Amino acid sequence: VKQFKTVAIVSTGTEILQGMYADTNAQWLAQRLCGLGLRVVAETAAPDDAACVESALRFAARRADLVICSGGLGPTGDDVNCEILSRVFGAKLVYDNHVHDMIVERFSRRGVEVPTGNDKQSYVPEGASVFYNDWGTAPGWFLSPADERGVSGDDVVAAAAIALPGPPKELKPMFDRYVPEILAERLSGDLFVRTHTLHIYGYPESEIGTYVSQMFRARSDVDFTILARPMGIDLRITGHAATVEALDALIDEVERETVSLLPRNAVYGTDNVSLAEVVGDLLKSRGEWVSTAESCTGGLISKFLTDVPGSSSWFECGYVTYANSAKMLMLDVSADTLSTYGAVSEETAREMAASARRLSGTDYALATTGIAGPGGGSDTKPVGLVYIALATSTEVIVKKQVFLFDRELNRVHAALTALNMLRGYMMEHPVHS
Amino acid sequence: VKQFKTVAIVSTGTEILQGMYADTNAQWLAQRLCGLGLRVVAETAAPDDAACVESALRFAARRADLVICSGGLGPTGDDVNCEILSRVFGAKLVYDNHVHDMIVERFSRRGVEVPTGNDKQSYVPEGASVFYNDWGTAPGWFLSPADERGVSGDDVVAAAAIALPGPPKELKPMFDRYVPEILAERLSGDLFVRTHTLHIYGYPESEIGTYVSQMFRARSDVDFTILARPMGIDLRITGHAATVEALDALIDEVERETVSLLPRNAVYGTDNVSLAEVVGDLLKSRGEWVSTAESCTGGLISKFLTDVPGSSSWFECGYVTYANSAKMLMLDVSADTLSTYGAVSEETAREMAASARRLSGTDYALATTGIAGPGGGSDTKPVGLVYIALATSTEVIVKKQVFLFDRELNRVHAALTALNMLRGYMMEHPVHS
Repeated sequence: VKQFKTVAIVSTGTEILQGMYADTNAQWLAQRLCGLGLRVVAETAAPDDAACVESALRFAARRADLVICSGGLGPTGDDVNCEILSRVFGAKLVYDNHVHDMIVERFSRRGVEVPTGNDKQSYVPEGASVFYNDWGTAPGWFLSPADERGVSGDDVVAAAAIALPGPPKELKPMFDRYVPEILAERLSGDLFVRTHTLHIYGYPESEIGTYVSQMFRARSDVDFTILARPMGIDLRITGHAATVEALDALIDEVERETVSLLPRNAVYGTDNVSLAEVVGDLLKSRGEWVSTAESCTGGLISKFLTDVPGSSSWFECGYVTYANSAKMLMLDVSADTLSTYGAVSEETAREMAASARRLSGTDYALATTGIAGPGGGSDTKPVGLVYIALATSTEVIVKKQVFLFDRELNRVHAALTALNMLRGYMMEHPVHS
Repeated sequence: VKQFKTVAIVSTGTEILQGMYADTNAQWLAQRLCGLGLRVVAETAAPDDAACVESALRFAARRADLVICSGGLGPTGDDVNCEILSRVFGAKLVYDNHVHDMIVERFSRRGVEVPTGNDKQSYVPEGASVFYNDWGTAPGWFLSPADERGVSGDDVVAAAAIALPGPPKELKPMFDRYVPEILAERLSGDLFVRTHTLHIYGYPESEIGTYVSQMFRARSDVDFTILARPMGIDLRITGHAATVEALDALIDEVERETVSLLPRNAVYGTDNVSLAEVVGDLLKSRGEWVSTAESCTGGLISKFLTDVPGSSSWFECGYVTYANSAKMLMLDVSADTLSTYGAVSEETAREMAASARRLSGTDYALATTGIAGPGGGSDTKPVGLVYIALATSTEVIVKKQVFLFDRELNRVHAALTALNMLRGYMMEHPVHS
């Protein structure tokens, strides 16, 4: 079979060409394809217009061994890709009964009849390896080069093709389940590449930079990137090796060296783990429970915690006491405290956390009260001021922070700071059994 | 002079093709160009490689009247664009003294000699209108179509070209200062373009498609897009007109026609509004309050509601009763109900909503209980099953849904369905004063 060295990505969607959003599918695909040792030689976005899509596919096919096309497989009239792909890559469309059955089953599980438009999604190119869609309705597929299928014609390009649905929630899992396996025999190199990410919360990017910059310069066998994201700082380590074992050993060694240069417990997790997952794992391993009492974060801490599958074995409940009346009614915050110190105060945060812990019977409670913005600030209590409290069996710790972001990010950082306080406490207070 | 109708964007930079970042320059340029009444027919990203850049430029030039190329004008060896652009568009490079002086001045202000590499940045194509760079060193430029310059050749393309530096901090201000003015005489009439978005929740994309497809085909004066997003369906209407007034009238007319074809109240809002904002606006105008009682959504409904600035004037509180013990303790759900019907049941949802409304003293309460997944499902209660309840002054309405997404999206849709139930109720029950 033909070996693939180069790949071109074609994204379709009029919205992209109108600047509604950046083509993040292409970015994600480029990362994955580089990880498979392929060279991405072009990324093209075309509007949902037959002539534009066709010319983009022909351009891509001239440039690369393999064309990956995303989008345009939906049920509506502006989803034109299936027909164009079949013409350009030389394979007539055939009805796939299994795809049809999956679509019928998907709608029947929801107690709905299959809408007319969805029927056209049961057609796939003849000879294609079909990627069945467990995350939506449109199937994807891989079509080998025309000459391997005994197809030729003036209008038929030589490249192989992969089609994927446009929604990222379908494209990503479909790629990961099907594409590496189907391409394995066509990838020439023994090149193993992996990017390993260390997540850090609560330190400025520049401070992290000073800890690691010397090592970054010294090691030429590994690529480093420091990325400041809204959710914290990512240190990305990219290694290359001839075998999986050598790659694992290299990444392990560099991770240990990096962690040793950073403050104790600064790295909260690696790769796809979230701060809430780390907190959940710690709680679970200790057999402890947490509850929340939220004002300015309005449910965001409990949302983050319950994002974690299995959180029901360590998250008990949350009190979202947005109004002052709710703080009194649900959490027994005293009217005195509210009138003397105000709802946004160390004292209110302290009472909220202590009450939540006592009422729910949990080991820990996290509380927030603050001014998320854009309105509601004053000279003494500016927008972004948040008191964050952690109640434990022995004490209530309150942290005062002033965040300088917008409403959304002020809330996110108040919630993450609360989670990181609980993580830090558990790291410093191991359970002795 | 030649009038421009179509434009193609070429972005260069190896990092883009390695998936380091999404091509946000292309997104920004597409927005600006659509705003100028041009149609963006292709966006292509190419690595910093002469053959790749040249083929991307030639593809772009075949597709469009104007090619806008960004990046690759820097001082280093991998910045190859200037030479390639001059060859493809047929203009030899000439030394520009003013550019040179600006570069020298820029470095001298920093007390630094001009590095060798920067000298090549003083060359621009002969006959180009130069965009002097106040934000960096590389100049940009506009080159009119070859035939207007009396240039021809087999290798020379017919399109006009604009070159811009890659760093967004240089590209954006340079575009805004120079490009609209230089293109003004070449833009054919309809200078005013606007995209208006109608947001819909609770209908499948294909169903919406059947309502509007006939009108979409019939109206050639407007572009339509249907976009299925995680948060619902967007219907995008893009109109063009010669005056702002005509454009407003056109968009208004098309919006009214579209809404009249859709189910009553299907459109919850337009442009940048969120479902939670619409719910908040309705509550505020009615002087009513809402509270929440959440199990599977774990605080997400209250998070969505408190995302809205000013939500403290209509959102009272939320009960995040994740554990069964919390449902009993915080919301008086009876042990009988939990043991007879289970936590995930219509009866539990009903009691949660009714209790939250009663305890908090609000006009409405929204409740959810379900199985977000990935674990916890059974034959009778599958993953994705959610009961969503709305308590009002006269009744408790419970809706049963089975979502087939992942944990995150199942939770998002349970929360949005709850918000949409409250919106629907308020729309159908106007306040009589």
